[in-house]
Amino acid sequence: MDLTITLDNQIDRPLHQQLYEELRQTILTGRLLPRQKLPSTRSLAQSLHISRTTVTQSYDRLLSEGYLESIVGSGTYVCAQLPDELLHSSPVETEQTLNSDPIHLSCYGNHLSQTLFALQPKLEQPISFRLGQLALQHFPIALWRKLLSRYCLASSDWLDYAADFQGYLPLRQAIAAYLSRSRAVQCTPQQIILTNGTQQALDLVMRLLIDAGDGIVVEDPGYLSARRVFLSHQAVLAPVPVDESGLIVEKLAGLDSTSLKLVYVTPSHQFPTGSILSLARRLELLAWAHQHHCLILEDDYDSEYRYGDRPIPALQGLDQSNSVIYIGTFSKVLFPSLRIGYLVVPPSLVFLFTQAKWLCDRQLPMLEQQVLTEFIEAGHLESHIRRMRSHYDQLRQTLVKALKTHLGDRVVILGEQAGIHIMVKLQTSWNDAEVIQRASEAGVGLESAQPYYLQGIDRGEFILGYGDLDSETIAMGIDRLAQALEK
Amino acid sequence: MDLTITLDNQIDRPLHQQLYEELRQTILTGRLLPRQKLPSTRSLAQSLHISRTTVTQSYDRLLSEGYLESIVGSGTYVCAQLPDELLHSSPVETEQTLNSDPIHLSCYGNHLSQTLFALQPKLEQPISFRLGQLALQHFPIALWRKLLSRYCLASSDWLDYAADFQGYLPLRQAIAAYLSRSRAVQCTPQQIILTNGTQQALDLVMRLLIDAGDGIVVEDPGYLSARRVFLSHQAVLAPVPVDESGLIVEKLAGLDSTSLKLVYVTPSHQFPTGSILSLARRLELLAWAHQHHCLILEDDYDSEYRYGDRPIPALQGLDQSNSVIYIGTFSKVLFPSLRIGYLVVPPSLVFLFTQAKWLCDRQLPMLEQQVLTEFIEAGHLESHIRRMRSHYDQLRQTLVKALKTHLGDRVVILGEQAGIHIMVKLQTSWNDAEVIQRASEAGVGLESAQPYYLQGIDRGEFILGYGDLDSETIAMGIDRLAQALEK
Repeated sequence: MDLTITLDNQIDRPLHQQLYEELRQTILTGRLLPRQKLPSTRSLAQSLHISRTTVTQSYDRLLSEGYLESIVGSGTYVCAQLPDELLHSSPVETEQTLNSDPIHLSCYGNHLSQTLFALQPKLEQPISFRLGQLALQHFPIALWRKLLSRYCLASSDWLDYAADFQGYLPLRQAIAAYLSRSRAVQCTPQQIILTNGTQQALDLVMRLLIDAGDGIVVEDPGYLSARRVFLSHQAVLAPVPVDESGLIVEKLAGLDSTSLKLVYVTPSHQFPTGSILSLARRLELLAWAHQHHCLILEDDYDSEYRYGDRPIPALQGLDQSNSVIYIGTFSKVLFPSLRIGYLVVPPSLVFLFTQAKWLCDRQLPMLEQQVLTEFIEAGHLESHIRRMRSHYDQLRQTLVKALKTHLGDRVVILGEQAGIHIMVKLQTSWNDAEVIQRASEAGVGLESAQPYYLQGIDRGEFILGYGDLDSETIAMGIDRLAQALEK
Repeated sequence: MDLTITLDNQIDRPLHQQLYEELRQTILTGRLLPRQKLPSTRSLAQSLHISRTTVTQSYDRLLSEGYLESIVGSGTYVCAQLPDELLHSSPVETEQTLNSDPIHLSCYGNHLSQTLFALQPKLEQPISFRLGQLALQHFPIALWRKLLSRYCLASSDWLDYAADFQGYLPLRQAIAAYLSRSRAVQCTPQQIILTNGTQQALDLVMRLLIDAGDGIVVEDPGYLSARRVFLSHQAVLAPVPVDESGLIVEKLAGLDSTSLKLVYVTPSHQFPTGSILSLARRLELLAWAHQHHCLILEDDYDSEYRYGDRPIPALQGLDQSNSVIYIGTFSKVLFPSLRIGYLVVPPSLVFLFTQAKWLCDRQLPMLEQQVLTEFIEAGHLESHIRRMRSHYDQLRQTLVKALKTHLGDRVVILGEQAGIHIMVKLQTSWNDAEVIQRASEAGVGLESAQPYYLQGIDRGEFILGYGDLDSETIAMGIDRLAQALEK
């Protein structure tokens, strides 16, 4: 943990006061994050060469003021729910900055500072069903390393930018071919803009298409990170519910469409419910969007992991009127810190997106683009996907079986045909927070689906990510969860 | 060149018409860029299996409409100055998109589409004094490869994000230490936000601090890429001239400061004049900024290459009131496609910038962060900088000597004490375009300083980048230039 604390014996403020201020500052500036565990009073005292009483005094004050919370038998944590007014007003209050001018933010900056969310560290539990985790131990590091090494030496081209402002052309060609054969996406390499992953793709779309007050249709529940980007641009969200066939397209008719600019969908694997948008609804959605002059933003974030029927063609491939922007990423199939994703945009938007990306941060690292190109062209991508699909499929079957075995009719499993998490509805008398607390006491981490809904009420719905677990752990975790909920 | 042309014999539009439309589209969407050379009519005819007459007919029409220009003895090029109305209105006019809905852009998108600039490919001349080129052949590829290889195998940590949202902590620590010893920048690792280079740093600052109509003081002449980012956010530029001691700070007094939010400066090596902001002016600027509640944006883009006196401390290190945001990058000292730069921000802005970067595109690739950390910590960065400084110094001396030898009192050399380009003022009877044309006919590429001024009038000032050249080529280039200007 990055907890650099500077105390000064020479100053006449007492040490516990100094420590209190340092820790408070650390929390307010986000260096210590909500739910992050603090060192024990003993170990912090040792590392700072001060008495344990001093540390205890500081902790006590922070506890009483709501910055910290103590969990019996576990330790002291930064409060999961920091009082909003702290986060909203605080970062400017430090002693150091009181001397300086108030800093005037832009509208975007101001809006963002009013809606700061905690950047959450990963939950630490012996068995954590965490969302978005991958079986990274199966990534072919040796192969990737070999390719890196080879391209490092093959030429020195990779030291400089790609000649193409949209990104390395051979990579865009490889992606266009891959998308065509695997997702029925119809595009030329010229329609592809390489981005640093999905997040930048979403942000570019917002910047170029959305003004404050513009409406965006979102799935409810839906992908939180996308929603946050939309909200950071002060878009107005128009939630539409989903069922087992994905977004309920007919509900769009009930919306006031005047300010709607965009429909954001995850048709291959609705996040987080896991349902798949039916072909009929896809066509219906395309027709609706065309009729209402809305663009569709198709986020195909983990379409590769699909266990049931043949995949349904991407909306982009079904579209006849250039009204779909398609987003894909390699973070989910390869590894998260490979910051390579892409946008497929209608021809008329190519130059604008290219220029926006260039203004925004130029290009992607070239060596990775070359390595990824070969990785795709030599067939490694698709064979890796096949391997991982079968690996995740096995985990998924274990999870489903364990849920049925241990929870029986106390659980309803939603959309398990795709992805690397499943959503469940638990029949219990506990509310969501109690379920999580009980699970946590049994050493099991799981997430409520609550934050993914626009209206965050308790529904007894939870999300179980299993990508980084093994079958044994999954079975044990569900066993423990079931026991914890029985008590 | 990426010139994918699709012709269809079955369609009843004549082939020359189809080819005309395809090529026009290619230019309008920016796939063919201003000044880019087209294939000869013969080679295009061969590759498309059509008659040369067909190609000539299409070229002729594009020439007559101002899309192409023909340079005798050299070939056919996309027009350097495409008529503005073409670039502004065109990308939506394609046949393919006429069927689709008009796409409504955001204010930012609209503004950008009104101010599209050509993304220019590199000038191709036998000897090109191009700006921003580096001696990449001296980059220690073998060492970098060894480190990549080592960290690839050392653990699989690099597959996932860094635990720290601001970027990999050890890298931020290494940067803070490096900045402290080399630039007298005073910061903790907590004040550092890693970015994909300078460009993203500039863009984040704009997003968080600048609204349309806000004023930004810029050096005149100044860095074009920064100005483009500022303008893309609809900032109002307040140009202030520079002299041999950098920005003329006393001229700030003449500005209406009410809407000014930011002063953008390149104090270590003013771009492009090469002057260095004096210590007295640095202090004066800090006082002015504090008094007028303005932030200073200090872009230290190539401060490493400095040949004269001891470096003057960065503004950031002299600042007492947290009013400086400092930007640095490794693209210029290592290689351009290493997309790692950083912001050093006042403590009160840390959390906001961290969150904005996270929303914008998450994090930087982890493997490169690890490799760069070791590269800095093991002393490779600084020894590479020393080596390159001496290499560039030699080139610079050759260039200065050649200019004096061949052009004598027809040239005034401006600010040659830093960087990897110099600016010169030529005494000639030719205007800037004529100088460039004559140089080009002699096989020498050079850039007019004109675009770097807000008022683009002819001043006889030119910029000579020499980073990727060798001494012999430099001497020969200046010799040829001198001869070309004598005729």
